[in-house]
Parts: sequence; structure tokens; C-alpha cells
Amino acid sequence: MNVDAAMRLAIEQAEKVKGGTYPNPPVGAVILDRNGEVAGVGATQPTGGPHAEVMALREAGDRAARGTAVVTLEPCNHHGRTPPCVDALLAAGISAVVYAVGDPNAVAAGGAARLAESGVEVTAGVLADEVAGGTLREWLHKQRTGMPHVTWKFATSIDGRSAAADGSSQWITSEAARADVHRRRAACDAIVVGTGTVFADDPTLTARLPDGSLAERQPLRVVVGEREISSDANVLNDDSRTMLIRTRDPHEVIKALSDRTDVLVEGGPTLAGAFLRAGVINRILAYIAPILLGGPITAVDDVGVLSIAHAQRWRFDGIESIGPDVLLSLVPE
Amino acid sequence: MNVDAAMRLAIEQAEKVKGGTYPNPPVGAVILDRNGEVAGVGATQPTGGPHAEVMALREAGDRAARGTAVVTLEPCNHHGRTPPCVDALLAAGISAVVYAVGDPNAVAAGGAARLAESGVEVTAGVLADEVAGGTLREWLHKQRTGMPHVTWKFATSIDGRSAAADGSSQWITSEAARADVHRRRAACDAIVVGTGTVFADDPTLTARLPDGSLAERQPLRVVVGEREISSDANVLNDDSRTMLIRTRDPHEVIKALSDRTDVLVEGGPTLAGAFLRAGVINRILAYIAPILLGGPITAVDDVGVLSIAHAQRWRFDGIESIGPDVLLSLVPE
Ligand SMILES: NC(=O)c1ccc[n+]([C@@H]2O[C@H](COP(=O)([O-])OP(=O)(O)OC[C@H]3O[C@@H](n4cnc5c(N)ncnc54)[C@H](OP(=O)(O)O)[C@@H]3O)[C@@H](O)[C@H]2O)c1
Ligand SMILES: NC(=O)c1ccc[n+]([C@@H]2O[C@H](COP(=O)([O-])OP(=O)(O)OC[C@H]3O[C@@H](n4cnc5c(N)ncnc54)[C@H](OP(=O)(O)O)[C@@H]3O)[C@@H](O)[C@H]2O)c1
Repeated sequence: MNVDAAMRLAIEQAEKVKGGTYPNPPVGAVILDRNGEVAGVGATQPTGGPHAEVMALREAGDRAARGTAVVTLEPCNHHGRTPPCVDALLAAGISAVVYAVGDPNAVAAGGAARLAESGVEVTAGVLADEVAGGTLREWLHKQRTGMPHVTWKFATSIDGRSAAADGSSQWITSEAARADVHRRRAACDAIVVGTGTVFADDPTLTARLPDGSLAERQPLRVVVGEREISSDANVLNDDSRTMLIRTRDPHEVIKALSDRTDVLVEGGPTLAGAFLRAGVINRILAYIAPILLGGPITAVDDVGVLSIAHAQRWRFDGIESIGPDVLLSLVPE
Repeated sequence: MNVDAAMRLAIEQAEKVKGGTYPNPPVGAVILDRNGEVAGVGATQPTGGPHAEVMALREAGDRAARGTAVVTLEPCNHHGRTPPCVDALLAAGISAVVYAVGDPNAVAAGGAARLAESGVEVTAGVLADEVAGGTLREWLHKQRTGMPHVTWKFATSIDGRSAAADGSSQWITSEAARADVHRRRAACDAIVVGTGTVFADDPTLTARLPDGSLAERQPLRVVVGEREISSDANVLNDDSRTMLIRTRDPHEVIKALSDRTDVLVEGGPTLAGAFLRAGVINRILAYIAPILLGGPITAVDDVGVLSIAHAQRWRFDGIESIGPDVLLSLVPE
């Protein structure tokens, strides 16, 4: 298997554990034996558990000797809850290490340098953009800024409506798109809505599997706004924990969630507008259904723009079909 | 060259003449010599001129003998302004004919049968969906229904706005997207707007090249509505012809354009809504810019939908990046 294909396999491993590795990054690793065959794969285990490299080395066993480790993040070089991965790679007799993204964390960094000093052939930057914009995006943002990465997700018709004129909105997008949202919910740390959505829809805000059952991981549910919600609200049921943040200031919300990495803002239009005006959204996911609705209910109302010259400018970084719908992903320009 | 590649080359020829062949269909043809090398390419010439097959045969000369003709539409079998293409193919000694789409026109049809009777090996249906949904879409619609094919094109932000709150809208989409619109204008037969757009923007509604000069072909400009527009309006300048249709009934508009094949409705929201409610739109082209605008000005207001259960349902049949923008193409479900 060539190195790019191995990195893709490593990315797949990382995707499987995304959301479950806090505070560690969701990393994937593949060990190729000396003939280039896959000898082991692994991903970061839940908090305090082994890192990806160690999982992959365990599976590879003796076949790791003189092999190549392919990892989505530079192997760590520090004693945290687990010993440094660099030690494990050296002990296993790995002769080459390929990674995508360097570790921006000063404490953990230096892994590449130590491997090189120890005679291991080190290659950095393989599929780096894909990893930095993908599985490690939120974690890297947190490392750089100290703040959680915030994604605004909305479902809309092609004419920008989030509900029909009579307020009905179930379902704008397809089952396939909704399943995608539930996968993302399961992989994030917190889901945020305004009190308006709780009053209007009484959602449970849980991550569910296609059969309707609860996903193994449930993100924190967050309701923002000054009004009190009913103690019978579904969002307060026992399926997960819930945080009520009695403010209308997006910055306060982010601060209250500063120990999280990956936050998903699900609306509605009032809350989304407030977050967009405050400039605290780091990514937009627009699930667009091939329908026209017209009418007064748009997915967002006021984003603080009066004139086209002051439009909020973003950049498409992903366009994909999901069943009959289209998912557009945007990042700041 | 294999047959699929030759058909793609034929499609490219057809694209070049789209809009200029009325009332004939925009067809492309490729002649492969007996060794499978491209010996000639051709496309339908302007009204009354030779058909694609004849153009390609001319270029191929003697190399057509025992060669293969690859054509986007079944070769015609009737004497119109030009003799039947079937005669030309037989006279040139072609031994195989491959085409994409059968001719739905009873007068011209029968070409495949006559070729087969004459001992030519005939293959139908190669890249048929691509041709039927692409270069021949409008012409086939016209053959089937007797009515022009109507495309609604709009430019929008990701939140469904066609202008910022203060009415400014130049430019929502990029230069690349606007160039794409001008290419489509040059290839269509008529561009339709409401009087509101003329009053608001005073557009010329011409097809222009990237350098700002006029394209060779200019579609008919059509202004719909009961109000009189100023004789100074740019849409009445000498760059092309203009038709004023003093009605608010979309069906009357279509009827007035019934000798056309490919009609492009460019808006604004009032006219687009009326056409959508009347069910006379056959394709939607949404140019989506990666910007947020918010505010009250949406690309379409009332499409006749009150409840999500009665949403206008379409189907994405194309998703493409155009510079920084995305073009979504939709057809009725
Ligand atoms: N299409 C989609 O993707 C989607 C997603 C979610 C919801 N929705 C729809 O959205 C509708 C609800 O709309 P909504 O706008 O009322 O819901 P919302 O945005 O969830 O909640 C609005 C509430 O958020 C609070 N809030 C927080 N920060 C604010 C700020 N800076 N400014 C003002 N208020 C702030 C206020 O609550 P207090 O008054 O308590 O302070 C406000 O009333 C529902 O019909 C739902 O179906 C659609
Ligand atoms: N983003 C885009 O793609 C795009 C494209 C075009 C225009 N625009 C914008 O749209 C704005 C103009 O909006 P608009 O809605 O006034 O323009 P419009 O739709 O072009 O014109 C509206 C007029 O169309 C006539 N009309 C035709 N059929 C009608 C019907 N069934 N019902 C009602 N009226 C009918 C009426 O004229 P009478 O009153 O004369 O009968 C009406 O006033 C401008 O700001 C322009 O920039 C945006």
C-alpha cells in the first residue's frame, strides 16, 4: 500500500473515534510492515487510553520492525497519562514515520525531531490539508485559540427557507441528510439551540442511530436564552446532560463551553444570526434540499449586513451529495 | 479513440453551436476512420446549413470509407432544406453508426432503420442520458411538448438572498459565474425579466464576452408586465431585439414565445414566483455565492406553497464549482 493510501486508511480510523477522545485529539495510525503491507491500524482511545500509534503497533506486533508508521498527527513526545508514542515507535523498531500535521501543542511536540535524531526517516505533511481541515480541524482550532470550534448547521430549501409559510418544517431534508446530522451530533461535544427552538419544536437534541435508538456517545445539550423552559421539555430528559445558559451574548456561551472542542449550533434563526453577527462561527454546514418553499421563514434573518459591500464572505470547502440533498460546507474566507 | 470518447468529442462540437441552429437541433458528429482515428468533426450549421454528419464527412473525405460515424442524435432520414444525412453517410461508405438519442420527430426519424437495412452496423443509446439532459435537452422538450424549454436562473447568497437589505446586489456572484451566465445567454433564444427588474436595474440583457464586448449571437429580450417601460431603457437599445409582453400570465408569455426552444427567465422574484406557481419552469439554475446577507430581499417570495407537505419538489441534476461559487442545477422530480 502506498503512503497516501495508508494515510487515507489512518484518516478513516480517526473518523471512527472523533468525538470520543477528549482531551486527546482524534488521531489514526497505520503500521506498514517492511514489505509495505498493512500490519496494524489504530486510533486514539477514550480519555487516558492508548494513543493511535500504540494501538496500531499492538496489532502489528513483530511485523512493525523495520516498518513504516503512518499517522495523522506528529507522534507525541511527552509523558501524559500515557508514555510518549515516540518511545513506543522506537522500541518497536519502526524505521520510517510519515505524518500529516505537526503537533502545535508545545508540550507534546518535538516528536518528529526526536525520531529523526534516532535515525528514523521522517516525512511530514502527507495529506496535511485534508487532515487539518477534516478530522483534526476542531482540535487544532482549540490548540491555536483556546476556544472551541463552532459549526453552524442548518437545513434549508434552495430558496433559503427553513420552514414553509405555516411554520411546518418536518422534514425539509431527507433521511440520509438527517442521518448525517446525527453522525455529526454523536461526534461533537455540545449542541446549542435557542429557547425559541425548544418552545417551537421541543426537540430531544440527541444523537440517534438510523433505527431511532440512542448513539453510544451523547453530546452535551445547551439551551441559550433568558426565558425559562419547562421542566417537561424533552431537552431535559435523561438521554444526556443539558446546560441552560441564561444569556443572549454568544461570547458568554462560548466561554461557558471553553472546555469543549467541537460545538454544533443548530439554530434557530435568531440564535444563528446572533452567533454570525458576533463572528464566532468557524464553519457553516448547509444541508440544501431540492425543494422550493417561499414565504417568510428564512434560515437566518439578520446577519448584521446592510449592503452587499459588507456581505459576510466565506469560502466553500466542501460540496457533496447526500441522498437527494446537497451539503455545502463553508469556512471563513 | 473509443466510442465513448468520440461521443464526448461530438458533444463538445454540439455545445459550440448551441443556440445557433434553430429550428434544427444542435448536434455534434465525429467520423472515425477504419483504424479508429478521428478523421472529421462537425456540428449543425445555422438555419438551412448542413447537418453535423455532413460537416464531419466533408472534413473526413475519403477517410470516411469503412469508418464509424458517432453522432449525438439519430441521423435524419428526410428531405428538408438539406438532403437526408442517411444518404450522405451511405454515399461516404460508412460501415458503422453510433448515436446517443433517437429522433423523436416523426418526419425525420427512421434513419437508424434505413442505415441498418443498408447493412450499416447501428448502435443506439451511447451516453444517451448525458445528451438528452444536456445539449439536446431543450430541443427534445420542444419536440415532445411543442413548447419552449424554460430555465429559471437566479443568483443567491447561501441564505437565499438576492440582494442585501439596502437593495444592493452587484455583484452577488463572481466574475466566473457571471461569465457562465453570459455563455448561457448567448446559447439561449430568449431572456425574460419582469418590468420590476427593468425599473430597478435598467439592464441591457445582452450576452457579453469577458472583455465586455457583445457576443456574436444575441437572444431576444423579453420584458413582462403591464406597466410601460421608458423608451430610454437599456433593454430597448440596438444590441438585440426586444419583445414587450403586456401581461402577468406566465402561460401567455410561453405562448408568445412558442416558436422558441430555449428560454431563460432571469427574474426578479415576482416574475420568478409567478412562473414557478404556474408550473412552467423546466429547470432551475441556482448560482450560490459563499456569502451571507440576511435581510428581507429573497430570490423568490411566493411559490404557492403553504405547508412543507406541499413543497415544490425538484431533483438536483448537476452540482458544480464555478470559481468561488457553486452552481446547482435542478429538474422537476
Ligand atoms: N432549519 C433549521 O436548520 C432549523 C434549526 C433550528 C430551528 N429551526 C426553527 O426555528 C424556529 C425557532 O426560531 P427562533 O429564532 O425562535 O429560535 P432560536 O434562535 O432557537 O431561539 C430564539 C431565542 O434565543 C435566545 N437568544 C439567544 N441569543 C440571542 C440574541 N443574541 N438575540 C436574541 N435572542 C437570543 C432568545 O431567547 P430568550 O427570549 O429566552 O432570551 C430568543 O428568543 C423553529 O420553528 C424551528 O423549527 C430551524
Ligand atoms: N438575484 C437575481 O438573480 C435577480 C434577477 C433579476 C432581478 N433581481 C432583482 O429583483 C428586483 C426586482 O424585483 P421585482 O420582483 O420587482 O422584479 P420582476 O419580477 O422582474 O418584475 C416584477 C413585475 O413583473 C410583472 N409581472 C409579470 N408577471 C407577474 C405576475 N404573475 N404577478 C405579478 N407581477 C407580474 C409585474 O409588472 P407590472 O406591474 O408592470 O404588471 C411586476 O411588477 C431588482 O432589485 C433586481 O435587482 C435579482
